[in-house]
Order: sequence, then structure tokens, then C-alpha cells
Amino acid sequence: MEFEYDGPSMKTEVPGPRSKELTKQLGEIQNVGAINFFCNYEESRGNYLVDVDGNRMLDVYTQISSIPIGYPAEFPMFTSFSSQSAFVNRPALGIMPPENFPEKLAESLLSVAPSGMSRVQTMACGSCSNENAYKAMFIWYRVSTHTDPGCPDFSILSFMGGFHGRTMGCLATTHSKAIHKLDVPSFDWPIAPFPKLKYPLEEFTRENAQEEARCLEEVEDLIVQWRQKGRPVAGIVIEPIQAEGGDNHATPDFFKKLRNIAHKHGSAFHVDEVQTGGGATGKFWAHEHWGMDDPADIVSFSKKMLTGGFYHKDELQADKAYRIFNTWMGDPSKNLFLAEVLNVIRRENLLEEVTRSGKTLLQGLYQLQDQYPNLLSSARGQGTFCAIDIRDDATRNSILLKARDKGVLLGGCGDRSIRFRPALVFKEYHVHMFLNVFSDVLAEHN
Amino acid sequence: MEFEYDGPSMKTEVPGPRSKELTKQLGEIQNVGAINFFCNYEESRGNYLVDVDGNRMLDVYTQISSIPIGYPAEFPMFTSFSSQSAFVNRPALGIMPPENFPEKLAESLLSVAPSGMSRVQTMACGSCSNENAYKAMFIWYRVSTHTDPGCPDFSILSFMGGFHGRTMGCLATTHSKAIHKLDVPSFDWPIAPFPKLKYPLEEFTRENAQEEARCLEEVEDLIVQWRQKGRPVAGIVIEPIQAEGGDNHATPDFFKKLRNIAHKHGSAFHVDEVQTGGGATGKFWAHEHWGMDDPADIVSFSKKMLTGGFYHKDELQADKAYRIFNTWMGDPSKNLFLAEVLNVIRRENLLEEVTRSGKTLLQGLYQLQDQYPNLLSSARGQGTFCAIDIRDDATRNSILLKARDKGVLLGGCGDRSIRFRPALVFKEYHVHMFLNVFSDVLAEHN
Repeated sequence: MEFEYDGPSMKTEVPGPRSKELTKQLGEIQNVGAINFFCNYEESRGNYLVDVDGNRMLDVYTQISSIPIGYPAEFPMFTSFSSQSAFVNRPALGIMPPENFPEKLAESLLSVAPSGMSRVQTMACGSCSNENAYKAMFIWYRVSTHTDPGCPDFSILSFMGGFHGRTMGCLATTHSKAIHKLDVPSFDWPIAPFPKLKYPLEEFTRENAQEEARCLEEVEDLIVQWRQKGRPVAGIVIEPIQAEGGDNHATPDFFKKLRNIAHKHGSAFHVDEVQTGGGATGKFWAHEHWGMDDPADIVSFSKKMLTGGFYHKDELQADKAYRIFNTWMGDPSKNLFLAEVLNVIRRENLLEEVTRSGKTLLQGLYQLQDQYPNLLSSARGQGTFCAIDIRDDATRNSILLKARDKGVLLGGCGDRSIRFRPALVFKEYHVHMFLNVFSDVLAEHN
Repeated sequence: MEFEYDGPSMKTEVPGPRSKELTKQLGEIQNVGAINFFCNYEESRGNYLVDVDGNRMLDVYTQISSIPIGYPAEFPMFTSFSSQSAFVNRPALGIMPPENFPEKLAESLLSVAPSGMSRVQTMACGSCSNENAYKAMFIWYRVSTHTDPGCPDFSILSFMGGFHGRTMGCLATTHSKAIHKLDVPSFDWPIAPFPKLKYPLEEFTRENAQEEARCLEEVEDLIVQWRQKGRPVAGIVIEPIQAEGGDNHATPDFFKKLRNIAHKHGSAFHVDEVQTGGGATGKFWAHEHWGMDDPADIVSFSKKMLTGGFYHKDELQADKAYRIFNTWMGDPSKNLFLAEVLNVIRRENLLEEVTRSGKTLLQGLYQLQDQYPNLLSSARGQGTFCAIDIRDDATRNSILLKARDKGVLLGGCGDRSIRFRPALVFKEYHVHMFLNVFSDVLAEHN
């Protein structure tokens, strides 16, 4: 990063007059109920997002956790005709890929493939990635159980509080907020409890282990029940950290045992790393914290990876062409960006940076939690992928707005949590800058 | 188009040695059963696709009908820093759009909005567009029928032979080929017969009208049955021309009556223009051929529009934020391309070009059909969106390969049809060039 601003700078309230004007314009075209403000991406740099009213904010939310290395200052990739061509000639990747496609997959996605996986399928977004991962599990399960072909009543087991997307297959496994599912038909698939742990995890090991054992027992019960119902569980899908659902953690022991349960019952194991993947936990994939050689059968991704898609073990590859297929199957221009992003991550040792910044961030949250015990609780995190609970929903929302007024952009998750989702270039001095502002905001809410 | 090649030029068999080598490489990473060959997009121009072995083919398939104005010779859009910025700063459009977003929507998608629609929502691909269009219909239907909130058993009525995508909601309405649906759980939704008409339509008006009446009657029966089953039809989805399913046409009268049936029963009417939209029928939207002021409640698009999405009437807008939502909600850089493409379409009067070329193409197909009555039947089309039936599946596939060997790229659809899907820059002399090659290939199969 050659150049970055030296701090937030606020000119107007947010949204400012220009943002309000544009929101009104866009309101003639779309529902704008979720619009925060409009951005000037040309002026945004590194960890700073600049809005159309000239407000410059330290971005600790990064477009719902989807910007890997901050807002770039220059774009070396547009200098050559051949890379420009990659942006305008969007191929039907499944039938007529460009010459450099295997090489770029190797340089980008395969260079960070999860343990045990050498195959990857790109898709346009996170929901399509999960939809197709589910299909791959159904196809595999039908073959591995010698079930007769047809449209069988297979199911996917998911967890309360989980989020896996909003298309209809994904939505049947999403349980973070009721508004996401309202009015949309769904499948009768099993939903297991996700452990509700106490933080810091290392202080409550015994209680947490009991809670995890309870949830695992329930998982096995549900698998048996749904088999008896004639809707056998083809796959289990889980996030390494439930993100939209409130940054809910579980221990490596839980995930290891869950992986074994999947094995035992012949279900595929799908780890959804759409939000956790790409380095923010201090490892490239959050599941690497489990220390397993064979962590999953399928790992899906999107957001910070710039392209959607999923890695899978050899046996999860559909047996025939056109089963996992669509016109675009992703966008190869995103692989070019990803290859450059991964080079930066390696060259600048950004995973170490994240680990360092994350420790400082979590330490700071612990201190604030000690200072404001009636306001804050359950500080938790891996790398900079951190969160903290606020007294109640209303206070949480007020804190988010006040922090924004002071030039720090944060996001909520779950019922009353704040999630911290900086880019991988969030350094220790950015952490301190953030903690100073956050501390001021908390003082106003005590 | 400043420069284009003067005809096909074949150097090797297809796939050639380099394509085979790359297919083998990619086979280590993905299922390559559908790969035709690898392309050199930098050398491809206008109507000509160049492969990695130096074969130059007249492209009458255009990446499964997804290239609007051919392969570009230059990329004026990359000259400015601000448009480069649009390519690398991918925003979460639903919460923090770029400043020019409303303006670019107006210049691009809204400038070609279907009659009666001034609202549009972008999405990343065709499947996500239809998934979200279905959700919008469910949400609207719940409100308009005063049903209690929940995950109700609403349904979407679709047609045999229809194709609407491969994610799980879409797949429940897709019925073009069994392999698409195999092993994937589905919904119990009604499927109506699509008229099986005789071509040319104007020669069989009475029989065709009877067939259409039979199908419409069945639609009404199904709506009543599913209401009685407790799974009322929230929406009807249909393609103006069933494309994947075999280029099946119906008359404007059929669509008008179907639209009225939707009205009468309180179901939303969704026209899926993912393949038909963007000008290839000689009108920008295929449904314009129906001559209706109020053709639909929702029109979805993707492919030639470069971005996915759907237009909808005001009342189909979800009442609350975050109901039709995901992280990216499309990719605004695609709107920039689309705005340029639309400018070219207008400046060069490409819809007139398509109408002219399409007439010549269909005339040529009629002549060939007269010449080879045992081989060809049912030539049909609107604009250059044409098709013809071949004696049987095996002969069809042989013709496709032989044509490719002679430098003409075609695609199949349905059981035994060939579909013609040139770009909008396919001029009359390209039609003649194509017909010459096609005629030679047919002579070999007679």
C-alpha cells in the first residue's frame, strides 16, 4: 500500500446531503431501505472508505466483509490489452474457457486450496456456490447410497443461527433472521442446535464441552430421525464461525467430532467459508484452526475471494457433464484479481499482520469489557474476525451510528453483537485508532 | 466494428492439440465433460471466435447466446482511472453503492425497461435473478392474499420444456432435460403443458389455436387444483420462446390469454427473458412481439444484458429492506459495459439489422428444408433467434460437429433441434456465409 490517509475525517452527518439526494433518486428504481450512504470509490484508499459528501471513514466492515486488502490505490492489471480483453470477453466457462484459465486457477484458487482438496468449481456468488455445493452432495449421496435415480427426498442438515445464502436451497439452511425466510416456501430439512458457548472459551472449557456434547448428540438424533422419515441427510453444512447469526464460535473438538459423525452416517461434510475464508482469522481458512488433515468434503467461498465457488474432494465431482453447470460459471476476470490479491497477501505477510492486529484488537476489547461490564460482554474472535455483545439491540444500533459519526464504520450481527471485519491490511495502529474512537462512543452509552 | 475477419479459417481439427492439452490440465481441477475447446479471446473479433489452435470460426452460438455485439476490437472504457476503479472496487450494492449507480442504471437497464416497469434489481447471474424474482412474487402474493406470515406452501406454475436455471428454486421450474434435475430434491409445484405448435405458425393457425386453448385450459385446471391442495400458485413463469427446451414458440394470443388467466386468479406473471432478451428477436424484448401495454409483472434477464436482474412493477417491490438482498447484488462494472453496448445497438440500428438478417436466415432455412425434407423440418424463428429440427438426435449432433469442422459454430437445443444464436452484429453477408457452409454439411447427411 503506497498511500493511505492518516485518519478519519468527517465533513457532514452520515448520510450527508449528497447521499440523501442519491438515495432518493435510487428509491425511484429500487427498495433503498438498506442503503447506508453512497461512496466515492475513486477517493477511497486502503482502510478508508470515502463517501460522496467527502466523509472519510476507517472501514471496519469492508462491504459486508468482502474487501480483502483494502481499497486499491492503483490498478496495474489494466495496462495490457490481454487483461483488458479478459474483462470484456466473458466466456461460457464450462464450454469455452480462455487459454489461461487452468493456469490462473492454479495461481489463484488452487494455490490456497484447503487440505485434501485439489478440485475447485467457480460460481458467480456465494448463494450459487452453496446451491451447487448442495447439488454436488446430493449427486454424490445418491451414488454412494445406490439409491434409485429420480428427485429423491434427500436433506441437508444445518444449524440454528446459520447463514448460507438466500436462494431457495440455501434459504432452507439459513436460520439467522426470520425476515430472510418469511413468505418463501422451504424444505423439511433437519436443523440442529449450534453450541451456545461462554467466552472467553478457555475460561469455560468444562461447561462449553458439555454444551457441545449436547448439540452433537442432537445432530446424531436428527440424522437418525430424518433417515426414518425417508429424507436421509446427504450433507451437513456449517460455518466455522457463525457470522450473520452473531459470531458464534465452537471449539476444534466440536468440529472434529461433527466431521466424524458425518463420516459415520455417510453424510458429506460442507464447511461454508463464504464469510470466514480469505485470511481474516489469521489463517487463510478458518477451518485450519481445527488442525485437521481432512477437514471437509466441500469448502465453499465468495466475498474476499472475489469470485464464488467451492473446493471439493475428488469423489464429490459430479459423474457427468452439465450437472454442475450454468452459462457463466463464475467470471474469469475475478481470478486475475484474486491472483494479484494473493500475491500481496504473501509478499506483505498479511496473515501474520492479521494475527498481530487481531491480538491487539481482542486485548483492547477485553479491556473495554472490564471497563464497561454493564454494556459489553463476550468479546471473542480469531485474528481480526472479532465480535462483542452489547447490552441490548437498541444500544448496539446507537453505538453503530455514533461510531460512524466519529468516522468508524462497523457492522452488527446476531441480536445484539457488533462484528469487526477489517481488511487484511488493518495494522496495529489502525486497531489503536479504532479503539480510541470506540472507547469514546462507549463512554457516551454507559 | 472497425475490423473483422473475412471468413472462417481452420488450421486443425477441433478440438486441436493445444485445446486437448489444456482440457487435460483442466481435467485435473474440474469436470471437463462439457468443454468444447479453449479460446483465444484476444484474437477473437466481431462474429469470429478464435481458438487456441488458431482456428477461426463464425460464431452462431455466442457463448450460449450471451455475447451481445460480438467480440470487441478495442476497449475504450479502460482509459480512465474512474472506470478502472469501478472494476476493482466491488461494492455491497445494497448498502453502499457508488455515486454513479442511479445514473448508470438509468443509462443502461432503465433505458430499455419493458412497458409498464420503472423498477429494476440487479443480480449476479440468471439463476439468482429468477430465484429472487420468485421470492418477490411470493412476498407480493402473501400480502395481496392477506395470508398469515410464515413459510407458506406457495407454488410457482411452470411449463413442460421450460428452462429457468439450476439453483434449487429455479430447478423446480426447469423441465427441459432430466439430467438437470436428477438427484436433487424439488418442490411439489404445478407443471403445465407448453403448446406443441406446427410451423410455420401462419400455415397452421387453426390447429395451433386448438393446441394453445388445450394448454390454457390445463393451466386454469392446475391453478384450481393447487389452490385446493393448499399450495396456491403465487406466480406463473414462462419464456417467450422456450430456448433450452427446443425453441418452442407460442402465439401472441396464447401469451395474452395466459396473462389474463394470471390476473383472474391473482397470480403474478413472470416472463423469463434470460435467453430471449437483448435484441436477438428483432425487438429488444421478445415479449414486445405480443403488442401488450402491460405484458408482465416481472421480467428477468441475464446473458446478453451482461448483468443478471429483473424488472418489476411497483407493487412487486418487497415491502421491507433485506428481503431481496445479498452481499453483491450484481456487479456495477457490468452496467458500464451494458451502457456502452446499448449505445452501439442504437447508433448502428442493430435491431433493424437483426430483423433484416433474421428474414434472410429464416428464408434460407425454409429453402434448405424444401431441399432436404427427410432431414429438416419446422424451421422457425423471430429475428435471428431461429431454429430448425433435424431428423434425429444422432444426425443433429453429427451436423453440429461437421459444421464446426468447416468453421461454423452452432448449438443444439431440445431433443433434436439446432438453435441459431448469432450476435446482433450478424449481417446478411454472414447469413449467406453460414448458409453456404450449412448447405454443404447437410448434403453430406442426406
